[in-house]
Amino acid sequence: MGIGLVSSVLSKSSSLSTADYASVVSINLFVTLLCACIVIGHLLEENRWMNESITAIAIGLCTGTVILLTTGGKSSRLLVFSEDLFFIYMLPPIIFNAGFQVKKKQFFRNFVTIMVFGAVGTLISFIIITLGASQLLQKMGIGHLGIGDCLGTLTLFPFLQYFVLDQDETPFLYSVVFGEGVVNDATSVVLFNAIQNFDLANINYNTVLKLILNFFYLFTVSTLLGVFAGLLSAYIIKTLYFGRHSTDREVAVMILMAYLSYMLAELFDLSAILTVFFCGIVMSHYTWHNVTESSRVTTKHVFATMSFISEIFIFLYVGMDALDIEKWNAVKSTPGKSVGVSSILLGLVLVGRAAFVFPLSFLSNFFKKTANEKINLKQQVTIWWAGLMRGAVSVALAYKRFTLSGHTQQQKNAMMITSTITVVLFSTVVFGLLTKPIVRLMLPSQHLGRMLSSESTPKSLQTPLLGNGLDSEADLGSPDVPRPTSLRMLLTNSTHTVHHYWRKFDDAFMRPVFGGRGFVPFVPGSPTERSGHQWH
Amino acid sequence: MGIGLVSSVLSKSSSLSTADYASVVSINLFVTLLCACIVIGHLLEENRWMNESITAIAIGLCTGTVILLTTGGKSSRLLVFSEDLFFIYMLPPIIFNAGFQVKKKQFFRNFVTIMVFGAVGTLISFIIITLGASQLLQKMGIGHLGIGDCLGTLTLFPFLQYFVLDQDETPFLYSVVFGEGVVNDATSVVLFNAIQNFDLANINYNTVLKLILNFFYLFTVSTLLGVFAGLLSAYIIKTLYFGRHSTDREVAVMILMAYLSYMLAELFDLSAILTVFFCGIVMSHYTWHNVTESSRVTTKHVFATMSFISEIFIFLYVGMDALDIEKWNAVKSTPGKSVGVSSILLGLVLVGRAAFVFPLSFLSNFFKKTANEKINLKQQVTIWWAGLMRGAVSVALAYKRFTLSGHTQQQKNAMMITSTITVVLFSTVVFGLLTKPIVRLMLPSQHLGRMLSSESTPKSLQTPLLGNGLDSEADLGSPDVPRPTSLRMLLTNSTHTVHHYWRKFDDAFMRPVFGGRGFVPFVPGSPTERSGHQWH
Repeated sequence: MGIGLVSSVLSKSSSLSTADYASVVSINLFVTLLCACIVIGHLLEENRWMNESITAIAIGLCTGTVILLTTGGKSSRLLVFSEDLFFIYMLPPIIFNAGFQVKKKQFFRNFVTIMVFGAVGTLISFIIITLGASQLLQKMGIGHLGIGDCLGTLTLFPFLQYFVLDQDETPFLYSVVFGEGVVNDATSVVLFNAIQNFDLANINYNTVLKLILNFFYLFTVSTLLGVFAGLLSAYIIKTLYFGRHSTDREVAVMILMAYLSYMLAELFDLSAILTVFFCGIVMSHYTWHNVTESSRVTTKHVFATMSFISEIFIFLYVGMDALDIEKWNAVKSTPGKSVGVSSILLGLVLVGRAAFVFPLSFLSNFFKKTANEKINLKQQVTIWWAGLMRGAVSVALAYKRFTLSGHTQQQKNAMMITSTITVVLFSTVVFGLLTKPIVRLMLPSQHLGRMLSSESTPKSLQTPLLGNGLDSEADLGSPDVPRPTSLRMLLTNSTHTVHHYWRKFDDAFMRPVFGGRGFVPFVPGSPTERSGHQWH
Repeated sequence: MGIGLVSSVLSKSSSLSTADYASVVSINLFVTLLCACIVIGHLLEENRWMNESITAIAIGLCTGTVILLTTGGKSSRLLVFSEDLFFIYMLPPIIFNAGFQVKKKQFFRNFVTIMVFGAVGTLISFIIITLGASQLLQKMGIGHLGIGDCLGTLTLFPFLQYFVLDQDETPFLYSVVFGEGVVNDATSVVLFNAIQNFDLANINYNTVLKLILNFFYLFTVSTLLGVFAGLLSAYIIKTLYFGRHSTDREVAVMILMAYLSYMLAELFDLSAILTVFFCGIVMSHYTWHNVTESSRVTTKHVFATMSFISEIFIFLYVGMDALDIEKWNAVKSTPGKSVGVSSILLGLVLVGRAAFVFPLSFLSNFFKKTANEKINLKQQVTIWWAGLMRGAVSVALAYKRFTLSGHTQQQKNAMMITSTITVVLFSTVVFGLLTKPIVRLMLPSQHLGRMLSSESTPKSLQTPLLGNGLDSEADLGSPDVPRPTSLRMLLTNSTHTVHHYWRKFDDAFMRPVFGGRGFVPFVPGSPTERSGHQWH
């Protein structure tokens, strides 16, 4: 839209170098488009078919077309952003906000289910996609697809699209599908490292053991780093009590510490997503209660806003990038193949996801006591479907993987990226349009949201993970929970027990040191409880 | 501090390219240092000698030393940021927040004084520094100093260091010194363009007229762009009423529109600082009153926090950059000259500033009616001194000018940059340590803050500027203002009259369309007025 204008201005601009000027132009364009997306997204709020991500993709596509036409089909280079942008600036606020706003009760109650879905499920998916893709694509004559490429495809599909599953309406499904995505990142990092360090051709018992240990090491260290950053911020703010002098310091420290946890994890090759997610959880449990009331309102909204802007930005970028002429030129000679690859990938992902959602749900149900706690078929279908939906994060991750898997095989990479874009566009638009109605069809009654499922996998898996000092916040001991007295209760209701001890530990040791709800000195003139209620 | 660690990690990092990795390391380092600055700044809050900027510079210097020692004096390249970083990301929040939080009453009441100080004062300063520097430096054998270099030195000194002059304690001085800095930017842009487009060797009547017209054009267009962006955001938010669905959309639109105004001004070679400053003023007058209460709290604090972080970041960077080995190597052969240049520049700036503050104050006083409205000598000294103090913004601007004035004369540029750094460090640390006591000495009584000065320059200057639809918010018609009836009153009290008409116009036309205090529909459950009172 601003291109004709832009070229006329370009000649005037003597004080800015060309590179600077191009970035000024693209920032202007992107900020304008972001505003447009927000306004249009607001106007379409009541529309049951549309959502903000589809709007952003549509606007991105239109802009891309206009740029292509204006520049005479030469390039869309005007709008090339570094892929780093996603991982250094866009991703942290999205994941942090997810951790900050997640319903901790739900998340930790379903912790083992989430872990199993995230770790085992990703592995199953990975194997199916790797085998399927290498067999099918070899038959098409594209040559052997690297394992890294499969991993790229795999990480396409971890995250829930937030707009579709509402945390308030379907807390169980939300926590499972979203949590699975977070754990998925850790699994992906482990697999990615494994591919580089191990010879996967001859897998033996030792390799598998190493992989599993590696996963638990990475998971534990990443989580601990996030927890540590969160606790440190809580301790600093509680001890120094910044609010006495300036609200801005509190907000600044929270933002900076959260970001620092992500960047540190990135520095040490950990799963930065896990780290910043747990940092968000700890910050909302401790730090957030230690700051002044205006800081509380500010942080809550500012994290949500940053996440919101980042998500729209990513979808906008995907829409625009879909028309990148260079990537399409690379696969121009083989349009049929490109379509074929896209279809195969899409199919494999559908199958791969089905291959672990249904069996693992069955396994999970096997350990459940009451019918109410089991994951019924409709819910299983929703988990399968919702997990397929492309979230902003998965798009960003796909870009990351393909950038990282090396530029040595340009032709194949271009093929994979165009296929990825096709899959992303197709699934976001088509699945996205269908998901709202499907979720409503599958889960018609609102009270399904109340159906909480407790975990049932053996305790041995659970203890080391829940031992990290993080557990559900559920107010246990509520009268409607029957209290079995046998050993079987200990196994089936183990999180309840763990949670009970966690609460005691939290109240006795953690909260007095790190603050938290009810453990901060009352500030005269600051109605502490008022906004606290809105929040939880 | 993280360098030993860093080199050990570097070998492990196989999944990130070197460039990415370096940026991850430097982001980690900077974020850690920012946190340290905030914490230490908080601990030193009560110390009368220290302030946050000196802390940041000190920490930056220490870190720079450590890096130099660790890398064996080779380089501090690890921490090189693009100069764009300042102007695309750091500067907008600082200036916008200044406009957003400025006391509009004070600012517009002293509008003409500010304009005269900013425009005429900058010109006087510029001429003195240009002539002085070219004469003195030529005698030292450094060769002819370009006019662009002088402009670089000049723009070193526009902005007030916020921490020193408190808006609440000394509103008149704050508004004059700060406002002068904002206008100074417009003047600098005009002069900068003039140097490139006109032959300043043979100045005639036409050139001067062109320059003056150019200044008014730039000033008007930049202001109008800012006002337009602010009004547009107010109109959109009032009409669409985002708050109904989501607070985040309101906050996002405000942030994005403010940023867009800055980037658009940058795109069209306007004075982006003026634009975003006026955008901030309009947003706080209209838009801010149209959003929900939590958005109001959020935006107020989020703008302040972003500005706060940016300021600390700039000082930190300056401290670290002071040790940049390459720049010092370029002037290694002539250490005496470097010291000489620094001293000359510092002296010239002191003289240049004195040369307009005292005469213009005298001129201003000449038009004043009562002794209470005059700028007394102590205030003049404070204006002179406070304007000398290096603010974060002036540091950033200095970098910009020297980067923009071309890399053709590398040796001279290096000399100017090291001199600039010397001047900046010296003045921030030495003047900074002295300013708090001096301001207290000069302005011992708190009630000086109440002393408002109304403008006195001829109306002809005033009308076109105040005709832009922006004026003071002062509640005029207050009983303590005597109401003269002669023509002389119209001249001396002209802003009061202008203000009166502006109020009428605002209430009759602007507020019904764009909202503003008392002109938004009352939202049940949102105590609109409560936080509105805190704010003004």
